[in-house]
Amino acid sequence: MSAVIDVDDPADPRLDDFRDLNSIDRRPDLPTGKGLVIAEGVLVVQRMLLSRFTPRALLGTDRRLRELSADLAGVDVPYYRASAEVMADVVGFHLNRGVLASAPRPRELTVAEVLDGARTVAVLEGVNDHENLGSIFRNAAGLDVDAVVFGTGCADPLYRRAVRVSMGHALLVPYAWASWPADLETMRDNGFRLLAMTPNPQALTLAAAMEGLAGDRVAILVGAEGPGLTERAMRSSDVRVRIPMSRGTDSLNVATAAALAFYERARVAG
Amino acid sequence: MSAVIDVDDPADPRLDDFRDLNSIDRRPDLPTGKGLVIAEGVLVVQRMLLSRFTPRALLGTDRRLRELSADLAGVDVPYYRASAEVMADVVGFHLNRGVLASAPRPRELTVAEVLDGARTVAVLEGVNDHENLGSIFRNAAGLDVDAVVFGTGCADPLYRRAVRVSMGHALLVPYAWASWPADLETMRDNGFRLLAMTPNPQALTLAAAMEGLAGDRVAILVGAEGPGLTERAMRSSDVRVRIPMSRGTDSLNVATAAALAFYERARVAG
Repeated sequence: MSAVIDVDDPADPRLDDFRDLNSIDRRPDLPTGKGLVIAEGVLVVQRMLLSRFTPRALLGTDRRLRELSADLAGVDVPYYRASAEVMADVVGFHLNRGVLASAPRPRELTVAEVLDGARTVAVLEGVNDHENLGSIFRNAAGLDVDAVVFGTGCADPLYRRAVRVSMGHALLVPYAWASWPADLETMRDNGFRLLAMTPNPQALTLAAAMEGLAGDRVAILVGAEGPGLTERAMRSSDVRVRIPMSRGTDSLNVATAAALAFYERARVAG
Repeated sequence: MSAVIDVDDPADPRLDDFRDLNSIDRRPDLPTGKGLVIAEGVLVVQRMLLSRFTPRALLGTDRRLRELSADLAGVDVPYYRASAEVMADVVGFHLNRGVLASAPRPRELTVAEVLDGARTVAVLEGVNDHENLGSIFRNAAGLDVDAVVFGTGCADPLYRRAVRVSMGHALLVPYAWASWPADLETMRDNGFRLLAMTPNPQALTLAAAMEGLAGDRVAILVGAEGPGLTERAMRSSDVRVRIPMSRGTDSLNVATAAALAFYERARVAG
């Protein structure tokens, strides 16, 4: 069982992992590389405990400690127990989720590692919004996507807001940073068919494209809302696919568009 | 052509429609009913001009005036032209979209009006988050849903943030507030089959349910993230449907779940 340590001084240096969380230097993607991965709330902390991210400290209320007691049995990590007021003082704002965990950033997985055994992967280019990124991980987890590969211009999936919006799935769904666009060839060499999402009305519909590839490994390429995939990524793909849209509307949110592709893939190949 | 009126005094009373937009009393859903519907940005203003919401004033930069010139031809509404700084002073924060329009709230449509001619409607219960609500309108517009019906506990789709997230589609996709749950019977009397979304593994999959109803009018009932639909709404429905989920995950974001149902309906019945 983890040690429970009562803390009532917000200045206690043992709480430094959780200090001023809104401050920009807490971002784990800073060049210094010193950022920590922060999990917020019971559900996300539970998922961190199941993941390759090993917490080194927890800060939370007594109530959250009780909710997490089964999860923390056999885990060797200090739980700093504090009031909501002390927690707010430390993190710099009121935190209604009541518990935080901090984990050092482990080494990144390689593209080869995340492709191993995967049937469906999402490949993102230019998705630089943490909320969209978190949503994509949540959708990937629920809709049977095995891994996420990042091309250029993507935000860090371990940033606190992305982890929170992902409901912790950014810690569980394997991801890797690609050599771009060279690793698209790596994927093709591994038997993946590359599907590029586009609003182009000449493209195949999602349903038609997925039905043709039900037995294949598939990589679904998604670009940022607005610009979409670069021409380079488009040219490197095997099939261009579109979501049939009504009313002359031109786009959906990028995480929603990705969810529809994941859904269709799972429906046809599941 | 609309009158263009240059303004450089942020205290000018003609700009009162746009003053202190973050202040709570600007919400159009207040009991006083005095709130205005506010459109932000060129695209949303364009959609307002196409909608049943008639703007009574615009406030924007010269650049946005030029971008809107074709849309404003023949429209009789004053355009208060100001610098970004004056605009920020008026609205109370920096507004990077550069243009705003205000419209009085018209009468609400009735359920009968929005059902007329509709083949697919979304029915929402307890969706009280403006961002989710806005996303649902955006998804409805793009994925061929004809109207939205609100049961109890839903937020106002005309609140500024909902309109913005909807990309203006909250102004274009017809919606109505239902007598709840009595209007579920109204829908059934009008030939609609009522599909209730649930995580229950006993429910039919989306694909199976939609295939059985391709020729019918369909109402897709969606509840709030977390609690889902009430038992009362569940009991009033004809078919319970679920999204097949992987990894033991239990839910998607409510707007994403709705998008998958809209997509599947359009795929099968489109």
